[in-house]
Amino acid sequence: MKISHIEHLGIAVKSLEEAIPYYEEILGLKCYNVEEIADQKVKTAFFKVGQTKIELLEPTCPESTIAGFIEKRGEGIHHIAYAVEDVAECLAEAEAKEVRLIDKAPRKGAEGLNIAFLHPKSTKGVLTELCCPGCKCEEE
Amino acid sequence: MKISHIEHLGIAVKSLEEAIPYYEEILGLKCYNVEEIADQKVKTAFFKVGQTKIELLEPTCPESTIAGFIEKRGEGIHHIAYAVEDVAECLAEAEAKEVRLIDKAPRKGAEGLNIAFLHPKSTKGVLTELCCPGCKCEEE
Repeated sequence: MKISHIEHLGIAVKSLEEAIPYYEEILGLKCYNVEEIADQKVKTAFFKVGQTKIELLEPTCPESTIAGFIEKRGEGIHHIAYAVEDVAECLAEAEAKEVRLIDKAPRKGAEGLNIAFLHPKSTKGVLTELCCPGCKCEEE
Repeated sequence: MKISHIEHLGIAVKSLEEAIPYYEEILGLKCYNVEEIADQKVKTAFFKVGQTKIELLEPTCPESTIAGFIEKRGEGIHHIAYAVEDVAECLAEAEAKEVRLIDKAPRKGAEGLNIAFLHPKSTKGVLTELCCPGCKCEEE
């Protein structure tokens, strides 16, 4: 697997309205996009920090996995997303090495990226996303 | 506060010996340093991913805060460290904005960086480190 950089960090928050001022006024970052991803039941806010984005995730209903995460562990870092060239190829490689996959094939995530998740049981407790920005691996 | 990039991500693991092969063989990253930080009661392993480092943290005794973290929440992402120009200045700014500080003044961390932590109660649940690589703020 060839990772070029950390594409983003997903951070679970109860409320974008409360969290955005912390990131803007204390950390001095600038929110450049707020987006609702209906099928993931979240509303997201994005900030750029060098090569990496901070993606705040607010659950839009109690059935959202982010709501479950917050209930269990409180607000905090939810996942790390590595930028790769070809998500499908990386999934195949990971599966061949007996990594447990959440997504067997790439799917569309926020900002139109092709994404797939590896299971934290196989990644030393870190929910891990692979994604490719200008991606080769369009859905087949 | 002016953050240039994410300097590193701290990830709590039970065992470097078990975690390093995941980062090297599955993710394809290269461990370039293993270091014991006696006063933090951890052994660390470093990997570079673009601008950011992954810092694995293994507790060296049950009294280590990392051991407590793992016991409570399991292995996983422990903290995020932002690179700033002047840690002392940022601490003063954060305190003036009523952010709760763990460190009132910069101290030395891994790799000789000057570091300081903000309390997760003030940072929407994310244990947040400020650090400066080629740092202006030497201890006074």
